[in-house]
Amino acid sequence: MARSSPRKPVLRVDAELGTTSRRPDSLAAEEPLEVRVRALSSGDAAAAEPVVVTMRTPGDDVELALGFLLTEGLLADPDDVAAAVHCGDPDPADEHGLSSLNVIELTLRPGVPAPDLEGRRTFGMTSACGVCGSASIDAVARRSRFDLREDAAQVAPELLLELPGRLREAQRVFARTGGLHAAGLFSTDGELLAVAEDVGRHNAVDKVLGRAAREHLAGGWPLRGTVLQVSGRASFELVQKAWCAGVPVLSAVSAPSSLAVELAGRAGMGLAGFVRPPRFNVYAGEERVLPLRSASRASLTGMVTETNRTAPASLA
Amino acid sequence: MARSSPRKPVLRVDAELGTTSRRPDSLAAEEPLEVRVRALSSGDAAAAEPVVVTMRTPGDDVELALGFLLTEGLLADPDDVAAAVHCGDPDPADEHGLSSLNVIELTLRPGVPAPDLEGRRTFGMTSACGVCGSASIDAVARRSRFDLREDAAQVAPELLLELPGRLREAQRVFARTGGLHAAGLFSTDGELLAVAEDVGRHNAVDKVLGRAAREHLAGGWPLRGTVLQVSGRASFELVQKAWCAGVPVLSAVSAPSSLAVELAGRAGMGLAGFVRPPRFNVYAGEERVLPLRSASRASLTGMVTETNRTAPASLA
Repeated sequence: MARSSPRKPVLRVDAELGTTSRRPDSLAAEEPLEVRVRALSSGDAAAAEPVVVTMRTPGDDVELALGFLLTEGLLADPDDVAAAVHCGDPDPADEHGLSSLNVIELTLRPGVPAPDLEGRRTFGMTSACGVCGSASIDAVARRSRFDLREDAAQVAPELLLELPGRLREAQRVFARTGGLHAAGLFSTDGELLAVAEDVGRHNAVDKVLGRAAREHLAGGWPLRGTVLQVSGRASFELVQKAWCAGVPVLSAVSAPSSLAVELAGRAGMGLAGFVRPPRFNVYAGEERVLPLRSASRASLTGMVTETNRTAPASLA
Repeated sequence: MARSSPRKPVLRVDAELGTTSRRPDSLAAEEPLEVRVRALSSGDAAAAEPVVVTMRTPGDDVELALGFLLTEGLLADPDDVAAAVHCGDPDPADEHGLSSLNVIELTLRPGVPAPDLEGRRTFGMTSACGVCGSASIDAVARRSRFDLREDAAQVAPELLLELPGRLREAQRVFARTGGLHAAGLFSTDGELLAVAEDVGRHNAVDKVLGRAAREHLAGGWPLRGTVLQVSGRASFELVQKAWCAGVPVLSAVSAPSSLAVELAGRAGMGLAGFVRPPRFNVYAGEERVLPLRSASRASLTGMVTETNRTAPASLA
């Protein structure tokens, strides 16, 4: 946990009490990660080519790199990657021991061609989260290899309402730093498959999709029959990533953007927003959301009682 | 306002009431914007070169483009830009009439060289908000043209505590869509110089800094004696942008990241976080924050009374 929450002294100013005090505070760690890919096209080792640098919370770097390459359409299959290593030696001068770990190199299986970066490069640099180099719905539609309409997955509204709370439960760092986005991948049966956090919304999603891909958590690639729950807003980019991973339902605690709604509609993806018990909105793919079971049953959702807890030992 | 808040029908599910209803909902608009720059190096018009594509909320596009170029170190001075136009003809098939407005071209003054994109391009694409192509503190330090320590600006804690509320007041769209980040530039005397909103945190900052640059709102470039207030978290990238614009104080409603704190410290920037009346934290540049005036006076901050308001006409 120390890696993702460095502690620093801060000056705390309280105008009500008229006090100024110094105390340690946990910060959300943010470090650059450079992802390099090495292709072994003709059996010889070529130089690893830099693909992206992203500012991320250290941890789950392999998953982040894999998720990024898959959800940006730069790799077709998780099994195309043969090995992943952090490069360089630890730097003893680095307080957190992190800087040497900020380059990760993925080696592709022999015969798998290097990702085609040309289309992205010639379009100029990208700002705002990777998607923008080919920022149009058409471009995304061409890039995704999956037709979500082949996946008949549906989700119960009662389950959707549980997911933000279960995502928060699964987080460790969030409550300490207040600075992290989270993403969780669930099966439509409600099983938590993977969870990740990051200072960047898109990185949290890459990490969780990358983990599911790497560990075949959803029964293989694409990630059929799953719901991706995110802690914040749903942007165009997150819908793109979900689509490229074959995720049929995206659920967000806050608002979706206009283009996110358009892209989800085009993809056949269910898109829920403002998921805050006991209510949520469906912005696209209404057919993905099952009818409410009943008002009385549903009203219990989100009010998890603890009647099964045993009494404290001292009272037992 | 229609441009930034398209309305769409959504399905509203209420598990407490057991109801499902359809109603219109406002969405935060998100569209790609391609920024092109045309240099007139030898007096002849060269082709405009694409510099970046960013997903943004339409509006203030000139400010966004100018702010991006300045805060990424790609242009030295706001006056280097001679003209800015949206390209293309309106597309009648486009519902919002926006797509044709999604390319903006800036023409530089004769003799101003084209921005050097090579260093960014050869490093590979960038994800996560533009900064990452040269993602290290050293790189930012080289890129900023300004030494913030030459600006002795300080800010009263009572004023810092007012800024989040004043930023919210100045927003129009936020309350309608719940999906927008905001940024405001204030003088250290408390004057609101500029405000902007966007689906992207970094775009809101580019817009507000670009507007201040374009309209010389802070008395010229760099933006001395100012405080940049943002609605969310303070990332490395936002500190970088503030530094490149010569802004000496950055204030955030939520948490800063570890690298944001490090970069602010290196830059000599005041960095406040969790600014929530009556309290806030100072993470870097404590000398930028003046002492509290007194507990009793300070405790009034944020509780703006309206004793000077006249009674309603019917009671007068």
